[in-house]
Amino acid sequence: MNLKEYLKRRQRLVDGALHRWVPGENEFPPQVHQAMRYSLFAGGKRLRPILALAAAEAVGGRVVDALPLACSLELIHTYSLIHDDLPSMDDDDLRRGKPTSHKIFGEALAILAGDALLTEAFHLLTRPDLMKGVSAQRRLRAINQLARASGSCGMVGGQVMDIASQGQKIEPYLLEYIHSHKTGALIGASVCAGAIIGGASPRQYRALKSYGEKLGLAFQVIDDLLDVQGEERNLGKAVGKDEAKGKVTYPVLFGIAKSHRKAEVLVEEALGHLQPFNERANPLREIAKFILKRKK
Amino acid sequence: MNLKEYLKRRQRLVDGALHRWVPGENEFPPQVHQAMRYSLFAGGKRLRPILALAAAEAVGGRVVDALPLACSLELIHTYSLIHDDLPSMDDDDLRRGKPTSHKIFGEALAILAGDALLTEAFHLLTRPDLMKGVSAQRRLRAINQLARASGSCGMVGGQVMDIASQGQKIEPYLLEYIHSHKTGALIGASVCAGAIIGGASPRQYRALKSYGEKLGLAFQVIDDLLDVQGEERNLGKAVGKDEAKGKVTYPVLFGIAKSHRKAEVLVEEALGHLQPFNERANPLREIAKFILKRKK
Repeated sequence: MNLKEYLKRRQRLVDGALHRWVPGENEFPPQVHQAMRYSLFAGGKRLRPILALAAAEAVGGRVVDALPLACSLELIHTYSLIHDDLPSMDDDDLRRGKPTSHKIFGEALAILAGDALLTEAFHLLTRPDLMKGVSAQRRLRAINQLARASGSCGMVGGQVMDIASQGQKIEPYLLEYIHSHKTGALIGASVCAGAIIGGASPRQYRALKSYGEKLGLAFQVIDDLLDVQGEERNLGKAVGKDEAKGKVTYPVLFGIAKSHRKAEVLVEEALGHLQPFNERANPLREIAKFILKRKK
Repeated sequence: MNLKEYLKRRQRLVDGALHRWVPGENEFPPQVHQAMRYSLFAGGKRLRPILALAAAEAVGGRVVDALPLACSLELIHTYSLIHDDLPSMDDDDLRRGKPTSHKIFGEALAILAGDALLTEAFHLLTRPDLMKGVSAQRRLRAINQLARASGSCGMVGGQVMDIASQGQKIEPYLLEYIHSHKTGALIGASVCAGAIIGGASPRQYRALKSYGEKLGLAFQVIDDLLDVQGEERNLGKAVGKDEAKGKVTYPVLFGIAKSHRKAEVLVEEALGHLQPFNERANPLREIAKFILKRKK
């Protein structure tokens, strides 16, 4: 398969659905919908939605049934970026090469746009006009996955510890906690919830869960490496900002070569968990390999 | 019925459930769970949870099945208070007589605690160990109600316009929009979602929906009046702060007497919608009358 083509097609599919399902810029109050859409359509890779769709397909599910889930993952991811960038958090001016939400809309509206995106994710997953091929029971399970992965024992917990540990010498176990929660949890939930919506058997679910865990961690290790080695032009955000802020990252803790090797091992392990699956899991396989090679 | 006794008993019931179901202060990361619990147990009246329980009972539902919904409403309400109080929003130092979240925990943790409370609301509604007597279909419908009422076209939309209109001369229709969305939407959703969980017929649902709308608006008119006339000691927050901030309120727009008359009419209308119900709706009736008399 041509992964680049595949990713581009899926990105367009997700973007189209988001355009249809998220309130338009003219809906009242327009300013909050403009802020929501500004960040939502700022050029994200749609990795989490694509993973959810691919996981649903790997177990024989239909893309149309998993598309609302895919969009809700991007809504949650986007909300987390807006809030992470706030002055009281990471205080970032640039995101994906564009000014951050609070730089354009002010702090209050940025916070509220984030709140609204998070809420819209759960709205989307319960709309009676969507996901008609999926039982209410499965939808509840998928919502449960997303809520657990995003909350105080998931993504928010990771961000809390990331902020608490800035400028401090931290132990490797804490670095692992921050990464596995701040980024890993939602990537893992993308795969798990996609598997649920697709109708995975308990055995398939467990295998994909393990795949998602390894993948999420690999993704973050590479993210750290890109912050050190990447080019600002590719990343659309400042390079070396982690170090400047005294953030502890994999390269800081283990060095560049060892970090890269760690990412390789994680991807190999992720691929191992896909062994029982047939060729319908090929997109998941290609995405795992692609994680290692990404430049942004 | 003795309403005061009833409210106290229900408050204790909700508090106990929140204590059981929200992660403890020692769960990692402790600081975010402390911040969540600090605001959650700061002495709220639990009006929204009590309304949800009463609505479920009015249509013959069981309290035990509606209790997770009741708690999730309080989680959403508490998150909205934390975020509304932030320096970039209403910039309040006091809430329910205690320092606001960001005063104690700092801005970053206050934002994250709010995010986590909102997320926890949706987690609670999808926990597989709770609400066993409620079909997945009804749970989905209740979640849909909460998400719509809290999002950009509901509560968040109201807050957006409240902030946007501060210090400006606004038209009565905009005041109505702000109130019906910022406060009314979640109060209405409490009644509606309670009715759904309780198993309301379409006709019962419509009547309770109308009751909730009138009640929510009455509540806000009285809130405005208390801000002008109330005593700081009772309210646990600064009196007259709306006016100091140039907020447009009912008393500012219509005068005190006319505002109070408006609240009375709204409560009468709310009671009218309860006419088809038997004595199981008495708590809803008493709560409506109580709204007019409340001092805090």
